[in-house]
Amino acid sequence: MSPASSVPTRYPAELLRALAERVFTHFEVPAADAQQAADVLLASDLRGIESHGVARLFHYAEQLRVGRINPRPQPQVLYQTPATATVDGDNGLGLVIGPWANRLAIDKAQAVGAAWVVVRNSNHFGIAGYYPLQAAPHDLIGWAMTNASALVAPTGSGERLLGTNPLAVAVPGYEEPPVVIDMATSAVAFGKIVLARYRQESIPEGWAVQADGSALTDPESFDDRAALMPLGGDTRTGGHKGFCLASLVDLFCGVVSGACWGPFAPMFFDLSSRGESGVGRGLGHCFAAQQLAGFGDANTIRRRVDAWIRRMRAARPAAAGTVVQIPGDPERQAEAERSTRGIPLNAVVENQLQELAKLVGISLEPLE
Amino acid sequence: MSPASSVPTRYPAELLRALAERVFTHFEVPAADAQQAADVLLASDLRGIESHGVARLFHYAEQLRVGRINPRPQPQVLYQTPATATVDGDNGLGLVIGPWANRLAIDKAQAVGAAWVVVRNSNHFGIAGYYPLQAAPHDLIGWAMTNASALVAPTGSGERLLGTNPLAVAVPGYEEPPVVIDMATSAVAFGKIVLARYRQESIPEGWAVQADGSALTDPESFDDRAALMPLGGDTRTGGHKGFCLASLVDLFCGVVSGACWGPFAPMFFDLSSRGESGVGRGLGHCFAAQQLAGFGDANTIRRRVDAWIRRMRAARPAAAGTVVQIPGDPERQAEAERSTRGIPLNAVVENQLQELAKLVGISLEPLE
Repeated sequence: MSPASSVPTRYPAELLRALAERVFTHFEVPAADAQQAADVLLASDLRGIESHGVARLFHYAEQLRVGRINPRPQPQVLYQTPATATVDGDNGLGLVIGPWANRLAIDKAQAVGAAWVVVRNSNHFGIAGYYPLQAAPHDLIGWAMTNASALVAPTGSGERLLGTNPLAVAVPGYEEPPVVIDMATSAVAFGKIVLARYRQESIPEGWAVQADGSALTDPESFDDRAALMPLGGDTRTGGHKGFCLASLVDLFCGVVSGACWGPFAPMFFDLSSRGESGVGRGLGHCFAAQQLAGFGDANTIRRRVDAWIRRMRAARPAAAGTVVQIPGDPERQAEAERSTRGIPLNAVVENQLQELAKLVGISLEPLE
Repeated sequence: MSPASSVPTRYPAELLRALAERVFTHFEVPAADAQQAADVLLASDLRGIESHGVARLFHYAEQLRVGRINPRPQPQVLYQTPATATVDGDNGLGLVIGPWANRLAIDKAQAVGAAWVVVRNSNHFGIAGYYPLQAAPHDLIGWAMTNASALVAPTGSGERLLGTNPLAVAVPGYEEPPVVIDMATSAVAFGKIVLARYRQESIPEGWAVQADGSALTDPESFDDRAALMPLGGDTRTGGHKGFCLASLVDLFCGVVSGACWGPFAPMFFDLSSRGESGVGRGLGHCFAAQQLAGFGDANTIRRRVDAWIRRMRAARPAAAGTVVQIPGDPERQAEAERSTRGIPLNAVVENQLQELAKLVGISLEPLE
């Protein structure tokens, strides 16, 4: 979670992928699941969302080592209709249970046109954007949401009651790449507070509140009782809408699914619990998919998506020199760059990964 | 659109409902459709969202009078699977086509567990929150979205390319009322700019931009080339996420459906077009529903929703004395008050409605 103290060292993505796979299999995760879990992590690093990639491998390993996460889960469908299901993730890695449930949503959508699958008793599933990107090649629009450890205060309070609860949706284009929405429903991610602290900068109003609900602009005072604000900041700038969105995600992923919701969601770094609470089991996710062909000719729709993308890109640039980026553009640019130039790791993560590499007998050499 | 110049006069909801029905039938709308359209309008006024209620009746009447809207549409399902459909609204009132397509989503969700219905060739459909509230009594989670006349600039531009594109979702409780999310994806509605102008107040950064994309804080300078900002304001406070949400709504309602999307969406007050453009037909909507029983025992899920609502309501109040309101609370409070005390109308709307009342031979008397 700490920002780099110097220029980060870069490592080849495929080497980090191999390391992640070996670490997971070392802790009794079956080979196919380890491969799947590593794929989710590397997608995050390649797409530039390094907070959700191999930076967390050490913590996943700890969770497996102490028995907090089940390395060999047997996910089960508890309830279903042709277009819905609730899955129990058997306390497996979210990086394994998420893709399993997402495939179920894809299969159901291919059968009847659209589907929603909610998941309980799972764990952190990586970047939300990974999942709808799995749906896109099947001519499907894909959705993913997950709840997360409470860190966000509802509008009108300073109490942490909701996670940063991301929402991701991908809509495939024809010649253009898919539109990929992948956004936390908080104003910013916690990492931005850490970065401001490191840079000794104040943070804008609208990012965070103190425990009493008043504005917090000094990142040093973001203690365990402070909270992030929902997207939109305070009520005057629409923060109640961000609260609505965080609620939506928590209701599907936590409440409908039967997972732990709101303040009961398990903490990522807490190794002591098994993620259970009086209100539900584990972390929760939600996956959905809709056939393009369920709404018309798939290629015709894809071409309309292209036209939409091109019109938005052609928006009159602002005087400040900014241009309009389509949702997914920044991540695609990161992926193009990191696929060739490697994944930058900060010193903390680098040390953790070198330790894991030693454990599993891999030589982890940086790029020149 | 003008704020009241004095204390607004109040009229009984049922009298306004009767007026709306008579105005619609006067312009050749069949009785059942007129009743449906009036119900959507009055739901808006009762729920305190007066910008979308009978305040627009005069304009709907104009659109019918000049033939801009088809009073006797025959909506058609163009494409479908068990869980999806695309509906052509035959250029009918959105207040009629919307409920028709929403019922289709409800029927399909009752048959296979979940459904998504998109609509093209429709018109303004009233408040988005009306639709999911129709789904809730059937033990369904309901969704509604619509695109709208372009008024919002994508992040990085000052050009109006998207509507305020609302999203609404209702999740039913057991003893508690449903959680009802009903939110524009812009930072604020245009009405807030008008109100600030009237009050001669400046507006906060994050609401609006000038044509060149720079911040606009004097509401008097919000001219035809200025634009609203997406929820979140500028990039630093997460405005790109609001752009993602507005895009999501436009992609489903405009692009997937085959309606006019983005800057091509028909203008509400433009009587000259039939809402057609090279890119699609009319305004577009999207409705979805999911069976609670598709995810588990419906009453068990409803009770979990109750527990969620109660925990959020019990959030530690902020020092400023605010309390946490559940999405839907403000509208329910308005409905309780307005059902008994009547609907307040400002002078402009009152004059328009008196004119319509004369036209259709109704005596429109205010409450004492």
